Amino acid sequence: MTTTTTTTTTRGIATSAPRMLSVTAARAAASLTAEKYPSIKRDPRFATLTAEHVAYFKELLGTESAVIDGVSEGTGVTEADMEPFNEDWLHKYKGQCRLVLKPGSTEDVSGILRYCNEQKLAVVPQGGNTGLVGGSVPVFDEIVVNMSRMNRIHSFDEVSGTLVAEAGCILEVADKYLAERRHVFPLDLGAKGSCHIGGNVATNAGGLRLLRYGSLHGSVLGVEAVLPDGSVMNDLCELRKNNTGYDLKQLHIGAEGTIGIVTKVSVQCPQRSSAVNVAFFGLESFDKVQRAFREAKSQLSEILSAFELMDAQSQDLVHRVRGDRKRPLDGRHPFYCLVETSGSNGEHDYAKLEAFLEDVMANDVISDGVVAQDETQVRALWSWREGIPECLGHWGGTYKYDVSIPIAEMYDIVDDVAARLADAGLVGDSDGFPVVGVSGYGHMGDSNLHLNIAVRRYDEAVEKILEPYVYEWIAKRRGSISAEHGLGVAKKNYVRYSRDESSLRLMKQIKDLYDPNGIMNPYKYI
Amino acid sequence: MTTTTTTTTTRGIATSAPRMLSVTAARAAASLTAEKYPSIKRDPRFATLTAEHVAYFKELLGTESAVIDGVSEGTGVTEADMEPFNEDWLHKYKGQCRLVLKPGSTEDVSGILRYCNEQKLAVVPQGGNTGLVGGSVPVFDEIVVNMSRMNRIHSFDEVSGTLVAEAGCILEVADKYLAERRHVFPLDLGAKGSCHIGGNVATNAGGLRLLRYGSLHGSVLGVEAVLPDGSVMNDLCELRKNNTGYDLKQLHIGAEGTIGIVTKVSVQCPQRSSAVNVAFFGLESFDKVQRAFREAKSQLSEILSAFELMDAQSQDLVHRVRGDRKRPLDGRHPFYCLVETSGSNGEHDYAKLEAFLEDVMANDVISDGVVAQDETQVRALWSWREGIPECLGHWGGTYKYDVSIPIAEMYDIVDDVAARLADAGLVGDSDGFPVVGVSGYGHMGDSNLHLNIAVRRYDEAVEKILEPYVYEWIAKRRGSISAEHGLGVAKKNYVRYSRDESSLRLMKQIKDLYDPNGIMNPYKYI
Repeated sequence: MTTTTTTTTTRGIATSAPRMLSVTAARAAASLTAEKYPSIKRDPRFATLTAEHVAYFKELLGTESAVIDGVSEGTGVTEADMEPFNEDWLHKYKGQCRLVLKPGSTEDVSGILRYCNEQKLAVVPQGGNTGLVGGSVPVFDEIVVNMSRMNRIHSFDEVSGTLVAEAGCILEVADKYLAERRHVFPLDLGAKGSCHIGGNVATNAGGLRLLRYGSLHGSVLGVEAVLPDGSVMNDLCELRKNNTGYDLKQLHIGAEGTIGIVTKVSVQCPQRSSAVNVAFFGLESFDKVQRAFREAKSQLSEILSAFELMDAQSQDLVHRVRGDRKRPLDGRHPFYCLVETSGSNGEHDYAKLEAFLEDVMANDVISDGVVAQDETQVRALWSWREGIPECLGHWGGTYKYDVSIPIAEMYDIVDDVAARLADAGLVGDSDGFPVVGVSGYGHMGDSNLHLNIAVRRYDEAVEKILEPYVYEWIAKRRGSISAEHGLGVAKKNYVRYSRDESSLRLMKQIKDLYDPNGIMNPYKYI
Repeated sequence: MTTTTTTTTTRGIATSAPRMLSVTAARAAASLTAEKYPSIKRDPRFATLTAEHVAYFKELLGTESAVIDGVSEGTGVTEADMEPFNEDWLHKYKGQCRLVLKPGSTEDVSGILRYCNEQKLAVVPQGGNTGLVGGSVPVFDEIVVNMSRMNRIHSFDEVSGTLVAEAGCILEVADKYLAERRHVFPLDLGAKGSCHIGGNVATNAGGLRLLRYGSLHGSVLGVEAVLPDGSVMNDLCELRKNNTGYDLKQLHIGAEGTIGIVTKVSVQCPQRSSAVNVAFFGLESFDKVQRAFREAKSQLSEILSAFELMDAQSQDLVHRVRGDRKRPLDGRHPFYCLVETSGSNGEHDYAKLEAFLEDVMANDVISDGVVAQDETQVRALWSWREGIPECLGHWGGTYKYDVSIPIAEMYDIVDDVAARLADAGLVGDSDGFPVVGVSGYGHMGDSNLHLNIAVRRYDEAVEKILEPYVYEWIAKRRGSISAEHGLGVAKKNYVRYSRDESSLRLMKQIKDLYDPNGIMNPYKYI
């Protein structure tokens, strides 16, 4: 077993640069989470932090750098020092935490939770803090348990493809480590330069490779987690098959840290494809997008690795923000798709992709298309998809909905929401209008749409138009109100739109079973 | 939404013909499950069935054919009528059930369980009864809830590939339905002609396609299950992504019917590959098998759909049972592998496979090899792998271990067990020796070995050599004592070899939470 320490990339160099947002306006609009959700009150069961508590943690963790102490007198720790841990990167959610703990081992995490459980101290587990639903920041004064120090890669088996690593390992670091060994992490997403694999597992992140490699429920082989009472659940199986009792690790995948802290994961990693091709095309209608997707599935089959959808509005916004950068295709098309293939034989793959393009061109499924000729062009085409979230925030903020809807009706919600906002007179080109534009993009292959409303400022009038309308719209079509972002504090009150009474009751019972004192990531989820 | 009634194939035409075993000797050795496991006592909490109970069920289910009544006087139902429901197909486990219920709907199942829970009547859910660990037959007088009437396919979405069907739908029927729509069920196994997809989900069946399509934890999108109190958990999501709370369905995948009865499932089904190629080769050592596997993963990559391992002993036994059928390769090789590719372009795939074979031949990784030239040859080659379980039973019975071991040491257990049995003087060619031979085969791609001891009779002396030795051997290497067959009654006492104390405690708590009266599939699992 080899142990490799991963170098932590700073947030600033996240490849999709979520930290480089123009945020002045958004920051001005940011409010403390609890103020934003007035129905949430601090739970009086929880103790308030004292210097004695902090002394215990300092003793436990041994090293000064593992504790950021805003509780004790005279530490010189300011509110600004706490901000990176208290606030999410969209500046939408902000807590009032005064103590950050950075455990260096599973034993540390165990000691922290055992004590917190005894002392009734509430806890928020925090990975790269790149979430979009306020799940990884406190609401009140919860202790932040930040996993960044637990960033070691433990082992990788080249025959089976099994990677074992600590939760705080950054996704991009893990993927680069695997790339050197001709393998790939079965998950890829915009925040890869900052997010932690433990956080990915805890939030069941979806991302760009799900179409090809499936969800983390399939590719995570094992999880080690510390439960709220400090006991360690060692379900860190490294085998692809293990039918010996309830698959306990599954409950932690997507639990958003409400029943324990994921400390290590073992992951089934596929071979890296030596050949990657990317095509980008314009289409006349969403109906044609569906036809193109069906044909891509059929003709590209085993080499299809991404089928991404972007509407004209989202591409217009990217173009506006980036200035005069040339667009991939001439003219304006109502829809754009990015198709990626990954395979082991570049010649075979290119032949399949060419035949596919000829076919959809000849049958008038697509209006125009281009294929990347080299790695630079591959990255350039991807940037028109991956750059959307960053550009959307340009004017101040974004209302983001991450939804899944049966594919035939998937895009209708964008038109419906745009019409409602326009009817209410909220959309326009000048400062008087809060809304800049409504757009839809996402993972067509997973029936996963990101509905985004770019705004100049967060505004109650806009919110009233959006909610609960969006959730009701989705519930009517048996969709999901959170396809891949999770619930956090943002959607906790809307779960019932996607889950039935019986499921909600079970969830509550499971939460109570694991965490009778309710200390784990309170005020969120359910 | 279309509703199609699936035609039930009889057990006799199961493609791998598990029912065609020569079983006389095994049948003679068969014992009632409770006698075989003297430590198991009937739980006095459970009520004993009366004619009143039966009358209630007859009224509830409405139709005579839905109830096989061995309880009431004068029904003419004999023990022989009960046998198919009381006994597993290996004739190893046999219960004493006197009532079989065949619900026709989720409401029926709900009514049954609600009443059983109130009356403290124990229940065994039963699918195709093709399991190998005694999980689907009673131990004492539990009521069998047989799902064969709930066999409808509800819907299939050709764009997303989502199939929704009832639990009692036979796997092969579902796969044929999908084949007509150019898709494939992401699971394939020898018992496909008899097993139910609900049973597959409840036991987390692995099988032949796992290497390519991953486990059911990834491909099952939704589960509808009736909980022990009769309430219906509707988690029948049809979306690939849905991050709205704990993934409750996951607990039912592999729970072997201990926390509820799976009534419907929705499954993500991949496109069917138009081109399938199969190669079969002989190798000198297990070390070379590992090299061949590494090369296959690397060179065949996205089109590799199976990599199956067979040792010389297993192939010798198949050859002995089948008489003079010509073997695929000349001479005898210590190991054999079957490699299957599935892709969308036959020409491309054949080119890749040929290049791979040339490479492993040139580098002396394989000693000999053959590629199927048509569908008949494909089936013939597969029969040397799929025919093993049937042939092993030829002499009377088989001790079967379905284990997962880190790949480098995977085959050692076969040599070690064979040596122990030989040292004890239990292996030989005449009737005086209980053991005919020891062999290993399985899914190399999943690190999943089937260790099989073919015997003339079940024998305590053999059992003492095997257990707990085999389990201890596996535990030392952090393997799994049940890779894909599950626990059932066979392995319930050995779970601790593969799971830690903290996990076992959680499993027990989850069982108690879902099933406080313990009526669901008692005496098994944990």
